[in-house]
Amino acid sequence: MAKVLILMGSASDEAKVAPCAEVLRDLGISFKLTVSSAHRSPERTMELVAAAEADGCQVFICAAGMAAHLAGAVAAHTLCPVIGIPVGGASFAGLDALLSTVQMPSGFPVATVALNGARNAAWLAAQILALNDAPLREKLAQERKNMRANIAVAGEEMEGKYNLP
Amino acid sequence: MAKVLILMGSASDEAKVAPCAEVLRDLGISFKLTVSSAHRSPERTMELVAAAEADGCQVFICAAGMAAHLAGAVAAHTLCPVIGIPVGGASFAGLDALLSTVQMPSGFPVATVALNGARNAAWLAAQILALNDAPLREKLAQERKNMRANIAVAGEEMEGKYNLP
Amino acid sequence: MAKVLILMGSASDEAKVAPCAEVLRDLGISFKLTVSSAHRSPERTMELVAAAEADGCQVFICAAGMAAHLAGAVAAHTLCPVIGIPVGGASFAGLDALLSTVQMPSGFPVATVALNGARNAAWLAAQILALNDAPLREKLAQERKNMRANIAVAGEEMEGKYNLP
Amino acid sequence: MAKVLILMGSASDEAKVAPCAEVLRDLGISFKLTVSSAHRSPERTMELVAAAEADGCQVFICAAGMAAHLAGAVAAHTLCPVIGIPVGGASFAGLDALLSTVQMPSGFPVATVALNGARNAAWLAAQILALNDAPLREKLAQERKNMRANIAVAGEEMEGKYNLP
Amino acid sequence: MAKVLILMGSASDEAKVAPCAEVLRDLGISFKLTVSSAHRSPERTMELVAAAEADGCQVFICAAGMAAHLAGAVAAHTLCPVIGIPVGGASFAGLDALLSTVQMPSGFPVATVALNGARNAAWLAAQILALNDAPLREKLAQERKNMRANIAVAGEEMEGKYNLP
Amino acid sequence: MAKVLILMGSASDEAKVAPCAEVLRDLGISFKLTVSSAHRSPERTMELVAAAEADGCQVFICAAGMAAHLAGAVAAHTLCPVIGIPVGGASFAGLDALLSTVQMPSGFPVATVALNGARNAAWLAAQILALNDAPLREKLAQERKNMRANIAVAGEEMEGKYNLP
Amino acid sequence: MAKVLILMGSASDEAKVAPCAEVLRDLGISFKLTVSSAHRSPERTMELVAAAEADGCQVFICAAGMAAHLAGAVAAHTLCPVIGIPVGGASFAGLDALLSTVQMPSGFPVATVALNGARNAAWLAAQILALNDAPLREKLAQERKNMRANIAVAGEEMEGKYNLP
Amino acid sequence: MAKVLILMGSASDEAKVAPCAEVLRDLGISFKLTVSSAHRSPERTMELVAAAEADGCQVFICAAGMAAHLAGAVAAHTLCPVIGIPVGGASFAGLDALLSTVQMPSGFPVATVALNGARNAAWLAAQILALNDAPLREKLAQERKNMRANIAVAGEEMEGKYNLP
Repeated sequence: MAKVLILMGSASDEAKVAPCAEVLRDLGISFKLTVSSAHRSPERTMELVAAAEADGCQVFICAAGMAAHLAGAVAAHTLCPVIGIPVGGASFAGLDALLSTVQMPSGFPVATVALNGARNAAWLAAQILALNDAPLREKLAQERKNMRANIAVAGEEMEGKYNLP
Repeated sequence: MAKVLILMGSASDEAKVAPCAEVLRDLGISFKLTVSSAHRSPERTMELVAAAEADGCQVFICAAGMAAHLAGAVAAHTLCPVIGIPVGGASFAGLDALLSTVQMPSGFPVATVALNGARNAAWLAAQILALNDAPLREKLAQERKNMRANIAVAGEEMEGKYNLP
Repeated sequence: MAKVLILMGSASDEAKVAPCAEVLRDLGISFKLTVSSAHRSPERTMELVAAAEADGCQVFICAAGMAAHLAGAVAAHTLCPVIGIPVGGASFAGLDALLSTVQMPSGFPVATVALNGARNAAWLAAQILALNDAPLREKLAQERKNMRANIAVAGEEMEGKYNLP
Repeated sequence: MAKVLILMGSASDEAKVAPCAEVLRDLGISFKLTVSSAHRSPERTMELVAAAEADGCQVFICAAGMAAHLAGAVAAHTLCPVIGIPVGGASFAGLDALLSTVQMPSGFPVATVALNGARNAAWLAAQILALNDAPLREKLAQERKNMRANIAVAGEEMEGKYNLP
Repeated sequence: MAKVLILMGSASDEAKVAPCAEVLRDLGISFKLTVSSAHRSPERTMELVAAAEADGCQVFICAAGMAAHLAGAVAAHTLCPVIGIPVGGASFAGLDALLSTVQMPSGFPVATVALNGARNAAWLAAQILALNDAPLREKLAQERKNMRANIAVAGEEMEGKYNLP
Repeated sequence: MAKVLILMGSASDEAKVAPCAEVLRDLGISFKLTVSSAHRSPERTMELVAAAEADGCQVFICAAGMAAHLAGAVAAHTLCPVIGIPVGGASFAGLDALLSTVQMPSGFPVATVALNGARNAAWLAAQILALNDAPLREKLAQERKNMRANIAVAGEEMEGKYNLP
Repeated sequence: MAKVLILMGSASDEAKVAPCAEVLRDLGISFKLTVSSAHRSPERTMELVAAAEADGCQVFICAAGMAAHLAGAVAAHTLCPVIGIPVGGASFAGLDALLSTVQMPSGFPVATVALNGARNAAWLAAQILALNDAPLREKLAQERKNMRANIAVAGEEMEGKYNLP
Repeated sequence: MAKVLILMGSASDEAKVAPCAEVLRDLGISFKLTVSSAHRSPERTMELVAAAEADGCQVFICAAGMAAHLAGAVAAHTLCPVIGIPVGGASFAGLDALLSTVQMPSGFPVATVALNGARNAAWLAAQILALNDAPLREKLAQERKNMRANIAVAGEEMEGKYNLP
């Protein structure tokens, strides 16, 4: 039973989506990651959504570029929260993927994260799941504590290297 | 039997889509104009496409704004040419609708016209149909002759008003 | 006990945020709506977040324009999901609010909805809460059924008005 | 007798246009590919259009960058459908080529595809030609079946590599 | 004998182009202002250019919006300097007209002025003509003196109104 | 002796610059507000800068639109901090004024505030002057206290109007 | 006696400006190329302009990036035509340099060419000078003939390589 | 006692921030450079600001990318001038960092410098401090003299290399 279904619109986006899987794995959240396209395989997309829901999936994460319709297509077929990762490159500096993902009509939100923000998509999914999973929430709190500690360490190193009192 | 199916994503786009119907009517091209949304009524959209094809429809015209997925969703379900009208307003100066319409992945083109370019969507549909409809082609040629004549008239009026020899 | 805390960065955004409250009310979701700014009242913002969490709040919705830091500031102080509504006007066609809201660093996602997308922020909050609230989920399903029906009605009206068979 | 004339504005765009020829060849569609510029060789452009029409050409494909006027210039001299490929690089992130191609005035549409979308220009031409060419339509249907199959295969590989049940 | 030919792509741009004629008239520069379109009347455009050149025209000014090809089309048919006025509105905040005008390929420059910069197009034409017209140059110098004087007057008024010493 | 010199590039920007003067007046900071242009009156601009410096001016505030060079031109002639207010309208959604103001080369910074951010230009000037003016600093602190209080009041009103517990 | 003065704002732009000098040299147009900055050396810039004018210079070409004020600063001090080359890189995709160059206020036009369009700046200068230099005009006409011939040759090569009759 | 506190949001920005430290060192201005994040370490950020103020710090410099909130977060907690360096890369061509930094609400200005403009942030800080430090002001004047001299030298070299009299 996977709590999260990650869909990428094209296998060529693997490198940009992999960090999402990695964060979920580190947090011990079950997930399924596969490929499906809003345009090339619309039936597959619908079937994956239905099967995932039947299997207890609670959050969908969709990564796509250009006219990034994948998250929107999934949102049209589920009431679970759908998170969109705009995958961008040089064309239009990434604006195409971002605007196609975020500008959804009323009633069909896509929870959009930063351009190529795979790690944050996983974080958002985890925060949603943690609303009913205290140990997961504890892990997230611990992760943030680590981030704070890392910042302090990095700060000290930088101070040693540059300061001019 | 309608040769063209015009879909608008929201009834609120009526004023921006009506010129498309007007041009088709003036050219004597049969069409059906209705409302369907990629997200709010995906099944209806698919059914309308299938029914139109069965009825002899040859060109689809889709008008949508924001994350304009409608043309793409139709393109995923037909092999007929799909023309996209990006419908735009103040948000992002119209870039959201344009990029969401035009940036389609390989194998699923949307023939995109100008922002709010409803008249040109009708023109493009007519040019496609005219490949096998000589009288229609003649009408288009006549229309262009009229445009040229109008330009000359407008030019003369302007000359009378402004020139400083 | 409010399940959702809606913060707007400035009282002047009231008209753009009110639809968010309206949707939540229609869905019967308890909420608190107030004003706080990331810059003008950072302590108040933090206190509101802490008090809301203590009171059982599960989702935060933040609406802000320009350098829209409010959602990010809230995200820095909670592990609950934070939804951001970029509030935009003429300046930079809304890009300032969108990019300031969505481009969050790893570990601090803001679930961003469309520019001025107050209704969708409420929808997204509802979808998250519905993961553990079957009656709410049923209401959302019913709402979508209504949307579909409205589309069909609007479509028929449009057909009666325009079609040229 | 070539059914499609592909014009590129500069020989330096060859690498970006070649996939268009490749798709047409794979689909067995006759075409002619040559170089002509809206500005450097306007007469040649007009002559090529006239000669192609006389020879039975039905669709024009034009690829150009920067102030991409080529497709528009061709559209001014034919009633056949004209497809525009905006060819873009770093300058203005490709917006110059896209906007110069798509924003055509009423009566002179350019069916615009994605930035550097050479393959989709060929697909769109094929879809137009297939309206009166059943075997070609069958090939297109088969291609899409292949795409769907490839997606499923790619999906399975990805699942094997990443899933955490 | 008109020294300057002003072309506008559409009579609907009259209000935005009129200030160009006004400046030329004030400077006593002979001009012809008429309408012609790169797409709707390409032959007329070429004939107007040829006739103007034969009549001693030295500078062309072209005003057009959207995919503003007019200046480029004129530049392809003359060796005289061509000045382009991008005419813009809400769509894409004017970027379409500007980029379509300025991004010309090597060998066919369009001397581009500001968005809706009709007065500056006249100024630039005047500066070019003044290279061989000393009295005109004197008028331009006088105009600038007036501008400087006006600034000083406006400054004093403002000081009287606001200063807090 | 005015501590701050406010220059606007054109008297037509008065309405957008006036709030800057108002804030300075409220804070009791002496200032001179006048008109000068980087292009129309470069000598006047230089003279105003020199005279102001001689008179004890410590901060320059420059407001300009379009290719907003005024702040940069002032920065080239003084070592005092120069604050730039990009004044923007519909053209390019304000990007022209912002980028022309902020993208200064090394050694000639312009401290840029938000588009049409006249009030913040005054605030920034006040914060700089307050480094050596304790009573002014106290006023600023008091202003911020007022802002915080206003937020709390606005929040309470909003809560009374909307909350659904 | 140099007919053209080319100024670049920074020696680091040499590679992007050199093609301008090359075109002028090929056309036999005398020129001076040097470095001066609107901000780092405003007096030098003014002196270079005055000296060039005294020496018979007729056209100024200015190349600058970022907040590209150089062409505007020169335009403020001469009545000769000033041509601006926006020099751009990755930041803002070149929009900063383009908008800072082209958006000049009334009375101070900068004849702007394409981003990094050094060759076209030379062409535009040549076209201006050719208004009173018949042999130069003949050279330009010959150059264009060569371009046309090169296009035809490139076209034939491409046809040999790709066509599918 | 450091007069300037430089904060970078992430240690990964070190290379882009180092030139700021270098300029301050060359000018003999005491500074502290460390790492802190608006989101990952908000308390650390506030503590660093408070400690720096207590220690006599007069200017804050904050460098951050994406939704660059760091400068704004610092501005919310100090009355000292805050300088923001937008740190940008490929995503959105740097617009995200610039707009998130500069578009601050009234009362909380961030003195924004160019994208990746670390050297200018140091210059601006120096200009502010020099208002009450005559020797520093003298150093700045000397630096500018050197810049002017370097320009002249670079100009001469260029002239030797390119001029065609």
